[in-house]
Amino acid sequence: MRATVMYSAGDVRIENVPDARLIEPTDALVRVTRACICGSDLWPYKAMEPSETGIIMGHEAIGVVDSVGADVRHIKAGDFVVMPFAWSDGTCEFCHEGLQTSCVHGGFFGNAEIAGAQAEAVRVPLADGTLYALQGGKDEALTASLLTLSDVMGTGHHAAVAAKVAPGRTVAVVGDGAVGLCGVIAARRLGAEQIIIMGRHQDRIALAGEFGATDVVSERGEEAVERVRELTGGFGVHSVLECVGTEQSMHTSVSIVRAGGAVGRVGVPHYEAIPLAQPTFYSNVTVSGGPAPVRAYIEELLPDVLEGRIEPGRVFDRVVGLEEVPDGYRAMNDREALKVMVRP
Amino acid sequence: MRATVMYSAGDVRIENVPDARLIEPTDALVRVTRACICGSDLWPYKAMEPSETGIIMGHEAIGVVDSVGADVRHIKAGDFVVMPFAWSDGTCEFCHEGLQTSCVHGGFFGNAEIAGAQAEAVRVPLADGTLYALQGGKDEALTASLLTLSDVMGTGHHAAVAAKVAPGRTVAVVGDGAVGLCGVIAARRLGAEQIIIMGRHQDRIALAGEFGATDVVSERGEEAVERVRELTGGFGVHSVLECVGTEQSMHTSVSIVRAGGAVGRVGVPHYEAIPLAQPTFYSNVTVSGGPAPVRAYIEELLPDVLEGRIEPGRVFDRVVGLEEVPDGYRAMNDREALKVMVRP
Repeated sequence: MRATVMYSAGDVRIENVPDARLIEPTDALVRVTRACICGSDLWPYKAMEPSETGIIMGHEAIGVVDSVGADVRHIKAGDFVVMPFAWSDGTCEFCHEGLQTSCVHGGFFGNAEIAGAQAEAVRVPLADGTLYALQGGKDEALTASLLTLSDVMGTGHHAAVAAKVAPGRTVAVVGDGAVGLCGVIAARRLGAEQIIIMGRHQDRIALAGEFGATDVVSERGEEAVERVRELTGGFGVHSVLECVGTEQSMHTSVSIVRAGGAVGRVGVPHYEAIPLAQPTFYSNVTVSGGPAPVRAYIEELLPDVLEGRIEPGRVFDRVVGLEEVPDGYRAMNDREALKVMVRP
Repeated sequence: MRATVMYSAGDVRIENVPDARLIEPTDALVRVTRACICGSDLWPYKAMEPSETGIIMGHEAIGVVDSVGADVRHIKAGDFVVMPFAWSDGTCEFCHEGLQTSCVHGGFFGNAEIAGAQAEAVRVPLADGTLYALQGGKDEALTASLLTLSDVMGTGHHAAVAAKVAPGRTVAVVGDGAVGLCGVIAARRLGAEQIIIMGRHQDRIALAGEFGATDVVSERGEEAVERVRELTGGFGVHSVLECVGTEQSMHTSVSIVRAGGAVGRVGVPHYEAIPLAQPTFYSNVTVSGGPAPVRAYIEELLPDVLEGRIEPGRVFDRVVGLEEVPDGYRAMNDREALKVMVRP
């Protein structure tokens, strides 16, 4: 089958690879109808050490189940499914708590162990725990939004939950990528009164406004902190959604949060420690977040997608076939595209 | 009047100072019946830069109101009061949220601006917001426990709340000082099932056991982390109460918390950044806490003190008169005393 293989920073190829197939009796084989390129895929695109075998990329997909292993009980051939970026058994104590990204038998797609979904098909371990079978929802107009339930919409929602967004609260979203924009949707959906989008790309900021952002801060560093304070009576915001993951964005995040407030971090951290441990102590700031248990959130977010109350699929601004995926990486890395949908 | 003045590390003197008096119309003058030496007082005792004027120390007290300013409405002369370690107006939005330690008009006792309570009397700013008037409770047997509501019991409770202690949870308390021991009381009171006390002082560990600790870990560093994992099925604890504030104790705290768990930090931080930002991200760990809004907690904790369900006053193992306070500092610093009560 055709699949996207990354060999080193900047080196993404579409190749013939052995067909994805059932290995464990708990597996499902899913024919990918849509996949994505993720902002987090750009980290290895910038910095991956050369690999001889390469890695089959991609951790977000929707598709149709082709076949299932002997021990799969609930998922069946023909199901239209969302594939969250993490696979999980659905039965361990972490899964029961709704923290499927810490499943004791689980893991992530698109790495040296488990092939990814930027491919014609993908092997999904622990299919019953991992996959979410959609009843209906095959309306083409909803495809893009359903696809976001595999990662970015659930991740933006997780940032908002970790940052304790609640009705009437003030919120800042650090980062205007696809996750940040979904964070705006999530913050509004949870009732935030003021939503400050922090970013500098005009088209993304415009979309953030349509999603519910009330203010824009395009400054950086200390100036950005001052602007947020000006916009919030000097106090900072109740909730910060950290959707970038750099040292600077984390520094900004803990600088703009109000006393007693919370930072929900979902940007993959490229920093070793959380800065400003003393000021955040004196102001009783909470720092929370991590890889979103998107599997847990599908049920909550799905009705709003199906009924059109939220339209996270609007973050996609380019659709490519599998053969054009390398150019999709380039376009996202050059900030030419916001988020790329892949149609294998 | 007589008061405790610290001039530099190790230099604590009892001196005649100008009498405490009303200055603002919102002040109360409180005759101190009991004060304490706090673990946090040992930080300046170890490291204070020399000061010509010195600092009148002490931020925990109970006492009797001597007189009040013209604008004080609720507190009145003769009231028996708890003085929390922070003063607060009781009316700003932070006070309304129960975060009095971030009061926009508030501050802390025992520093260069506001004299402390290791003295015959103390001036209390914003008396109506700051002081809690006890109805009854003058039973001598309760004095010690009531005194802990001014800081250590409220602080231990805050650590437990920040660490999301709840019925059935597993808890580790890092530090066997007075706050850590109160953290054990708080964790048990909130229904924790397993409470691991981490410390190495036999008498304190014994008291922790009486307060409800179920396990003891006396190792340090990596060995301590392994011991906690052994005691918790390999996962770590749901809730960590960080009651020390050193780089090492914070490192241990974020190393022993379970995926999806929380660290409640109340030890005054002597570290610049919160370590292990990547592993705590991947395991969705929450870090929270700060100076406890003890004023907010008095109402909740008081019935349990009055009815003897909790006995935090047992953390005091020495009572001194004002003239002996310097030796009290020495004894606490030498770990000869756990917590010293001052009877001016």
